[in-house]
Amino acid sequence: MSPDNPALPDIQSSPDPRGIDIDQVGVSDLRYPIRVTDRDGRPFPTVARISMSVRLPHQFKGTHMSRFLEVLSRHEEEVTSRTLPAILHDLRDRLDAAEARIEVAFTYFVTKHAPVSGAPAKVGCDCVFSGTSNGKEDDLVFSVTVPVTTLCPCSREISEYGAHNQRGYVTIEVRPRKKPGGHEFILIEELIEVAEKSGSAPVYALLKRTDERHVTMQAYDHPVFVEDVVRNAAALLRADARIASFTVRAVNHESIHDHNAFAVLSGSNDG
Amino acid sequence: MSPDNPALPDIQSSPDPRGIDIDQVGVSDLRYPIRVTDRDGRPFPTVARISMSVRLPHQFKGTHMSRFLEVLSRHEEEVTSRTLPAILHDLRDRLDAAEARIEVAFTYFVTKHAPVSGAPAKVGCDCVFSGTSNGKEDDLVFSVTVPVTTLCPCSREISEYGAHNQRGYVTIEVRPRKKPGGHEFILIEELIEVAEKSGSAPVYALLKRTDERHVTMQAYDHPVFVEDVVRNAAALLRADARIASFTVRAVNHESIHDHNAFAVLSGSNDG
Amino acid sequence: MSPDNPALPDIQSSPDPRGIDIDQVGVSDLRYPIRVTDRDGRPFPTVARISMSVRLPHQFKGTHMSRFLEVLSRHEEEVTSRTLPAILHDLRDRLDAAEARIEVAFTYFVTKHAPVSGAPAKVGCDCVFSGTSNGKEDDLVFSVTVPVTTLCPCSREISEYGAHNQRGYVTIEVRPRKKPGGHEFILIEELIEVAEKSGSAPVYALLKRTDERHVTMQAYDHPVFVEDVVRNAAALLRADARIASFTVRAVNHESIHDHNAFAVLSGSNDG
Amino acid sequence: MSPDNPALPDIQSSPDPRGIDIDQVGVSDLRYPIRVTDRDGRPFPTVARISMSVRLPHQFKGTHMSRFLEVLSRHEEEVTSRTLPAILHDLRDRLDAAEARIEVAFTYFVTKHAPVSGAPAKVGCDCVFSGTSNGKEDDLVFSVTVPVTTLCPCSREISEYGAHNQRGYVTIEVRPRKKPGGHEFILIEELIEVAEKSGSAPVYALLKRTDERHVTMQAYDHPVFVEDVVRNAAALLRADARIASFTVRAVNHESIHDHNAFAVLSGSNDG
Repeated sequence: MSPDNPALPDIQSSPDPRGIDIDQVGVSDLRYPIRVTDRDGRPFPTVARISMSVRLPHQFKGTHMSRFLEVLSRHEEEVTSRTLPAILHDLRDRLDAAEARIEVAFTYFVTKHAPVSGAPAKVGCDCVFSGTSNGKEDDLVFSVTVPVTTLCPCSREISEYGAHNQRGYVTIEVRPRKKPGGHEFILIEELIEVAEKSGSAPVYALLKRTDERHVTMQAYDHPVFVEDVVRNAAALLRADARIASFTVRAVNHESIHDHNAFAVLSGSNDG
Repeated sequence: MSPDNPALPDIQSSPDPRGIDIDQVGVSDLRYPIRVTDRDGRPFPTVARISMSVRLPHQFKGTHMSRFLEVLSRHEEEVTSRTLPAILHDLRDRLDAAEARIEVAFTYFVTKHAPVSGAPAKVGCDCVFSGTSNGKEDDLVFSVTVPVTTLCPCSREISEYGAHNQRGYVTIEVRPRKKPGGHEFILIEELIEVAEKSGSAPVYALLKRTDERHVTMQAYDHPVFVEDVVRNAAALLRADARIASFTVRAVNHESIHDHNAFAVLSGSNDG
Repeated sequence: MSPDNPALPDIQSSPDPRGIDIDQVGVSDLRYPIRVTDRDGRPFPTVARISMSVRLPHQFKGTHMSRFLEVLSRHEEEVTSRTLPAILHDLRDRLDAAEARIEVAFTYFVTKHAPVSGAPAKVGCDCVFSGTSNGKEDDLVFSVTVPVTTLCPCSREISEYGAHNQRGYVTIEVRPRKKPGGHEFILIEELIEVAEKSGSAPVYALLKRTDERHVTMQAYDHPVFVEDVVRNAAALLRADARIASFTVRAVNHESIHDHNAFAVLSGSNDG
Repeated sequence: MSPDNPALPDIQSSPDPRGIDIDQVGVSDLRYPIRVTDRDGRPFPTVARISMSVRLPHQFKGTHMSRFLEVLSRHEEEVTSRTLPAILHDLRDRLDAAEARIEVAFTYFVTKHAPVSGAPAKVGCDCVFSGTSNGKEDDLVFSVTVPVTTLCPCSREISEYGAHNQRGYVTIEVRPRKKPGGHEFILIEELIEVAEKSGSAPVYALLKRTDERHVTMQAYDHPVFVEDVVRNAAALLRADARIASFTVRAVNHESIHDHNAFAVLSGSNDG
């Protein structure tokens, strides 16, 4: 490990006497332009918030923070299920570390067509790609948070007319199964579809009146509690052999309260 | 203006050659425990985020930031329409300034009783007390943000059943009219009542099923656009002689979209 | 104004009896992929948070929210000082409104080279492009928020060694002067340069040790209060004939406090 | 489990055919006024953001959300290491659940005296009290986030004068050891002290110039990396027999970057 300028002392590489390993040392809240891959395999440019870290053995006083940035810039802003392991291996190598982690949060957009008029418009979804590499294995986790409409089954059943409904957010986090040479590939759009099937109705950016009529009645016809949302999603994720394990989180921004209702359900497709 | 330690140079009081006045100089994002007054005149303890500033004449290099804190602590955490002018006068005096400003944002709680069962529970509302004093007059502005349910008139009208509804937030900002010796007094609870009357239904923290049935149908019976919410509130605020001017802002967290609908309406009760 | 489906009632176009105009009605917190223009005239793709609104005359019950999205999508995600007036005119036209507003907030990235090693890395800056059009004139305002290092002149002067310093944010908001056929053009990079010249030292994403040594001493050699930052920036903005008026806001995330110090200074280059 | 009104159907209690248990179902982002206990045993009123949840067996369609609020209000807003287990037991009982969780986030204030002048002022710290109860044991975790000053050892060593420093935040999360009849008691103030000893200098709300001189030189005399902060804190927490396990997280809002540096270190005092 040669310092960038041999004339300046390398404090970080000096020995530390306390004998305490550190689980994670790195940078966080780094904003960076990245490119992910859309459903047609084309690069989609977006803006990310990134954290990267390594495990630091007890004998070293500090890590070299600038190297995280060097590794990142060497990969030319491409962040996919293929480049994530490569970035992790470079981090371990360049920072001389047994374990490296990365978390990349970004907004992805899908074009959605209104259900009756077909009018197209884009809806943004928050995604997180994260990974850990420790020399023995690469662990990857992908998540997407999808806005949906949820309509309360209880409110519908007990009221003579109407039913409270609200915007809800479904977060689906999956660990793709390992396969020779990498991991199973799952499109962001596939996870969005699971989330939308689990709520009362999808949300859209652009709805004409014929569309608004459609989604209003669609939601009324498919009432769900947050409990139903996570169970619906879990049932779909359990049926997907490409997924090793998952966590689903549903949050309803209740229209009759100023707090939220939520449910969390984790599952494994192994054993 | 004597420095706290005459042996240390007072850089802030040194002359500045650029000849540029500064509109506001001060501290922001200061968290502080405060007491406001509830509807029965009792102190209500809460947590505030405070900014305070003064106008700085061109001849001075800087202001003395520590004095903002000294003034604040001298008023023993009481922030009301009576103490706000006193704090402003002290800021002008202690910081030797022609103009002083303060903004105090905090959460206030009101106990609300469920409409049928009568079950009590507290709902939090974001409030901001702000003021400016320039030696000629004290200008005070109070605002409160109230969660409400809104149900879409268009969705209800065009659909065979159901109607999309959502949590909305109504912010009512009022400038109380001046009167000899101070300003007209307006309870936070009165502004909350205006906001709740302007939506489709109030929100509650605790609703039993009989209550949920009630508010579901109440919302369906009183559909409002964001446009209606601000007009409803404006009509009520215009009828209140204690209010010199006002701004109403309504934001709907649309249940069928991932963006919000909003409306803003300002008015004056003078001429 | 023909509704999208003549068979469904057009509630929004129905008359409103309350006789109250509304200042702004529209959509907010809409996330959208956009392209701005970089210093070399090339499109830079980024993610925006957008609000759009119109003035609503008293005789109409509501506006047609879906049309905001239609106008936006028609401009194919290009948001520049040239397209902003065109979007505003389309909003006025399509929504039959006397006045339209838009606000587009996004992250822009500049590649910065470390001061000694020359190592390149990107730094993100928050920008806001906003505009109003009322048929008589188009008013445009651009702002950029730039992270800088600030080192306290008082701390440096009164201490035997060291000086507290911190990350600060400088927000420069300018209204470009009108000229025949449009507005004066100002690069985001030019405003970033003004902000960086006004602090103690620029910040970088990637600094090797030789660079860290450089910026540490650069900051110590150029101590500034928040008051100095806004005055420094104001002096530069006043000398720029392309700028009609400006507001500078500096916020220091004080390293010796858990609150911030701030200053605000507005100026006009007219008369 | 009798519904609040036998005449209305109890949808939540109806059977669910999917056979999937749910890990957590409950309410989140509930704002509530609470009282914690200060170092002298007196109640300190503050504002909390609360989430509460239960495990839901596969045979039930939903939980009864209103009961979370009923349990909370029954405990009269007192949230301490003594009442937390009682609230959890009531949640399990009232919601007929095998496991209950609660998380209470709030701001706590400590009066700090400036190091030379002795001037007092309050500094706010973010705290989280959380707990889980599953019938076999009650697991409690307390955390506090403390602002500190950190000064970079590398910058100090390699520069002829000055050293970059910044505001940092140290989060200390501890699991108190169980003892007969409850858990070991640890004051928030004790954790704050650990955090402040681990940085370069404490932060204060109010510093006169003599104090500013003192903390400037104190920070310069005690340079620390984020790595040092978590190791310093870990060494102190390991020596405290009342603590079963802990996690320390340090985040530096680097003054020379627009991203943060961070470190995380977990440890156990058992075996």
